[in-house]
Amino acid sequence: MLHRFLTAAAAVLLAAGLAAPATAQTADAKSDSANIRKIYDEALLRGQSYENLRYLCQNIGGRLSGSPQAEQAVQWGKQTMEKLGFDRVYLQEVMVPHWVRGPKEKGSFKAGKGNQSVAVCALGGSVGTKGKLKAEVIEVRSMQELRDLPTEKVKGKFVFFNRPFDDRLIEPGAAYSAAGDQRRSGAVEAAKRGAVGALVRSLTSALDDNPHTGTMRYEDGVTQVPAAALSTLAANRLSEQLKQTPGLTFELEMGCQTLPDVKSYNVVGEIKGSKYPDEIITVGGHLDSWDLAQGAHDDGTGCVQSIEALRLLLASGLRPERTVRAVLFMNEENGNRGGIKYAELAKAAGEKHLAAIESDGGGFTPRGFGLETNNKATVTQMQKWSPLLQPYNAGNLQPGHGGTDIGPLKDQAKVLIGYDCDSQRYFDIHHTAADNFDKVHKRELELGGAAMASLIYLLSKYGL
Amino acid sequence: MLHRFLTAAAAVLLAAGLAAPATAQTADAKSDSANIRKIYDEALLRGQSYENLRYLCQNIGGRLSGSPQAEQAVQWGKQTMEKLGFDRVYLQEVMVPHWVRGPKEKGSFKAGKGNQSVAVCALGGSVGTKGKLKAEVIEVRSMQELRDLPTEKVKGKFVFFNRPFDDRLIEPGAAYSAAGDQRRSGAVEAAKRGAVGALVRSLTSALDDNPHTGTMRYEDGVTQVPAAALSTLAANRLSEQLKQTPGLTFELEMGCQTLPDVKSYNVVGEIKGSKYPDEIITVGGHLDSWDLAQGAHDDGTGCVQSIEALRLLLASGLRPERTVRAVLFMNEENGNRGGIKYAELAKAAGEKHLAAIESDGGGFTPRGFGLETNNKATVTQMQKWSPLLQPYNAGNLQPGHGGTDIGPLKDQAKVLIGYDCDSQRYFDIHHTAADNFDKVHKRELELGGAAMASLIYLLSKYGL
Repeated sequence: MLHRFLTAAAAVLLAAGLAAPATAQTADAKSDSANIRKIYDEALLRGQSYENLRYLCQNIGGRLSGSPQAEQAVQWGKQTMEKLGFDRVYLQEVMVPHWVRGPKEKGSFKAGKGNQSVAVCALGGSVGTKGKLKAEVIEVRSMQELRDLPTEKVKGKFVFFNRPFDDRLIEPGAAYSAAGDQRRSGAVEAAKRGAVGALVRSLTSALDDNPHTGTMRYEDGVTQVPAAALSTLAANRLSEQLKQTPGLTFELEMGCQTLPDVKSYNVVGEIKGSKYPDEIITVGGHLDSWDLAQGAHDDGTGCVQSIEALRLLLASGLRPERTVRAVLFMNEENGNRGGIKYAELAKAAGEKHLAAIESDGGGFTPRGFGLETNNKATVTQMQKWSPLLQPYNAGNLQPGHGGTDIGPLKDQAKVLIGYDCDSQRYFDIHHTAADNFDKVHKRELELGGAAMASLIYLLSKYGL
Repeated sequence: MLHRFLTAAAAVLLAAGLAAPATAQTADAKSDSANIRKIYDEALLRGQSYENLRYLCQNIGGRLSGSPQAEQAVQWGKQTMEKLGFDRVYLQEVMVPHWVRGPKEKGSFKAGKGNQSVAVCALGGSVGTKGKLKAEVIEVRSMQELRDLPTEKVKGKFVFFNRPFDDRLIEPGAAYSAAGDQRRSGAVEAAKRGAVGALVRSLTSALDDNPHTGTMRYEDGVTQVPAAALSTLAANRLSEQLKQTPGLTFELEMGCQTLPDVKSYNVVGEIKGSKYPDEIITVGGHLDSWDLAQGAHDDGTGCVQSIEALRLLLASGLRPERTVRAVLFMNEENGNRGGIKYAELAKAAGEKHLAAIESDGGGFTPRGFGLETNNKATVTQMQKWSPLLQPYNAGNLQPGHGGTDIGPLKDQAKVLIGYDCDSQRYFDIHHTAADNFDKVHKRELELGGAAMASLIYLLSKYGL
């Protein structure tokens, strides 16, 4: 029942007065505290990010670069920000890769009498199989294990990369990092040893039948072989069967292909700074998503939170002193062309970027922000704001990573900032058919947008 | 895609070495850090709490005090701890209330031509309606508003308590606190003014059709009138209709009743302290749950985490220096008889309680612990352990509330400790038909058990 909430004095006090936190001492801190409270009130009582996300997910859906849905999303982003009355809303043209999955992929292996179908999907960027591709399978757990194998053990086979997530790691993102070489480089490393394809265990701790897609790459001079993800359950089944039937054959059928590049856009919405219009704070997420689902947590949430952050400032009467831009980047998933283009244009225009913030780790309960900068004084200065964000459980300001889209701004911005939220559920659905609107929690999403708006408020008031 | 995890140097380092945190300086701190890492490894690689919870939820299910399922749960708890080889497993007899819901409740109001059915459920402890109870409805938002009404406006009617959660509050638990008087005292306050029943808006921010049950109380000398919860959508519909049809009648049918008290049990599992067996650390959750669902987050998670905390210590080779007890308390939801009995028996036996920990806020991602004590030095001492828990995102040790079951130990224990986890989703499902196993996330649950075991390890090593 949790009676504690019925008796906790602090909770009741907070309920009664919504008191500013005790950390607010100076006049500035008091006014900052009150202003951040305004931002949160607006987000929690009249937040628009959840309904914006509903539209993006349910009316547009998955929006891989080059797809018609990606273009619909560009128009949606532009119109959404125009309706909110930002000072300026515009598109930045950028050519993006155009990879298409084709018909639903098929995978199976011979177990006992018949073929056993397993859940597979093409990795993004993979070539297709040109009909059915049938070959034996050799399982490895690491690139080193593959390199140590005699070529004749690999030649003509599928290499099956089956290293699971290291569940000991507290952040699933660290496990993703540690297992990610299999997806990114598996096909290239397999092809170098004469393999005909790569089968990759899905990058997740979850045991289910959702294959996880995600980008892979080829290398000049290395044969391009197909690469597919297996669901974790499929990977376990295949691994078990291989112990009993080392010579079993796997059959893969994928019709994916890469088409010519397509014209697309970043979407930019801007509020001009009232005092220092030439100093820019960018906040963004990426508008493109994988095609298997609605792209809710990856990264619809980052897009709607970025738009919301600007709306919250205006609606709270906190017009920023520095220029603030919400940027919906195109093509994070398989090329980062939008992020690169944004930084190029900023440089060409001689823009002065104070900070860039990205939300691309899902729309879960906030924890704080990761700060990417070589300047320790910047970290120290920003950490002084922690008490203002702590009442909202968003005060964890630590050195960390910004984000892929804002990465190319590294040499132009004083700090790159990654929005940090609870990460335990993210890789259950990441890049799968399950990354849909129903996985997003309204308040968790709103709290994130408010945290981002609050940080922007402080950055825009105090500078760096 | 979240490329940041593919490049973040810290993540890769951690992945490679699972290095002890940099905060570990002294030899003691180094060994503590390594031991806590052992606890987490055990939990994350070989954790048993999730499968234990699956059994409790899916094979036993809802287990309100006095029900056959509550007794099955007692046997399950005893056998589970016996199998784990704790030094001593025993039951503490306690008489508990026995309230039964009866057939599914019915509620409807007349809107336009026909009756509109709405989702209702009896509040725990309510009397039934003895057939159909039909009356007009008067809506109020607060007890004061009710008190200010002339008696003739209330007499013979249902009082409809429709104050929603205050969504501005960051912790939904604080909103629960602020709205909770309606459920607890609504029936009594309504009856004092001659009303025939109380209709209470469900205690949640979620807008859906799940009514939320929960305990209510009567007062000597005040007529006992039936009290029901309306889903938030039903409450909104009724409120809207009342504006159009102030004289509308509501019809309620509930067959609930309170039967004579029943014999039940707390379940206690104990590991004897190797150095100071007379100093006791209790860790617990409550075994009873509301009857509408499986009682997963409330409080199956607290039970399996408490058992797991002891198992983790043994499996990690960290036999505690002080005595540690896992206690599955009976009857938190509607009486707290188990918690009271445990404290009584402890007092009668002259036991020395060092600390008592409760997990009863759901099994979500850990944040830390709330410390309830009048002794500031205890808080200061415990906060020094924060760096050891921070690498696991469980280092937030702040003054707070312990828990209902351990509350009666307040005068006997040096500190009461409430396990603190992310709370945004808890009140969506709390006391509803949706509080089922599928809402619990394996890693979130396991991280909680490991956090509790780690704190117990420190308490048992250093004392207070």
